[in-house]
Amino acid sequence: MKPTHIEHIGIAVKDLQASIKFYENILGLKCYAVEEVQDQKVKTAFFKVGQTKIELLESTEPDGPIAKFIENKGEGIHHIAFAVDDVEASLKEMESKGVQLIDKQPRKGAEEMSIAFLHPKSTGGVLIELCE
Amino acid sequence: MKPTHIEHIGIAVKDLQASIKFYENILGLKCYAVEEVQDQKVKTAFFKVGQTKIELLESTEPDGPIAKFIENKGEGIHHIAFAVDDVEASLKEMESKGVQLIDKQPRKGAEEMSIAFLHPKSTGGVLIELCE
Repeated sequence: MKPTHIEHIGIAVKDLQASIKFYENILGLKCYAVEEVQDQKVKTAFFKVGQTKIELLESTEPDGPIAKFIENKGEGIHHIAFAVDDVEASLKEMESKGVQLIDKQPRKGAEEMSIAFLHPKSTGGVLIELCE
Repeated sequence: MKPTHIEHIGIAVKDLQASIKFYENILGLKCYAVEEVQDQKVKTAFFKVGQTKIELLESTEPDGPIAKFIENKGEGIHHIAFAVDDVEASLKEMESKGVQLIDKQPRKGAEEMSIAFLHPKSTGGVLIELCE
């Protein structure tokens, strides 16, 4: 695998609108898209910072993965997404190297991207997403 | 404040050498520097991914901030560093906007950078570093 850049950093928030205001008015970033990803039970907001995006994630369901994350750990950084040329090939490589996968096959994420998650148990506690 | 890019993502690890091997052999990144920052009681390892660096952080002391972080939350993503043109001016702006600061004045971080941290209490649980 050869990640080309950090595609985005996912941040779990309780209140998307309040957080958008913070990132715009305090940190000086500009929200360019808000999108619901039903599959993930989240509403997302995107900001561009150089080559990388900040993706804010608010749960749309009390039992969604982001709701559970906030329940356990509080609001904060949720995952890092590496941009790779070929998610499917990268997943095969990761599996062959003994990395535990959350997604055995790529699936559709926000912004029409092909994505897959690696399990934080085999990545030193970091939830890693691969994006193509 | 106008962050230009994500300067780095800080990741707390228990064993720097083992983690370097994981990032190199599994994720396909290349460690280009290992540096001790005595002030922070950490040994750091740097990897470049596009415009952004991954900074692995191992505590050099049992009472260091990274040791305490791992004790409370386990290994994982510790902070995001935004590159800004002027850390001192940005700190003043953040303070005037009601953001709680960890560092009232910039100090010297790894790679000879001028850095300062904002308190996660006023940034939605995200430990944010400003770097110049």
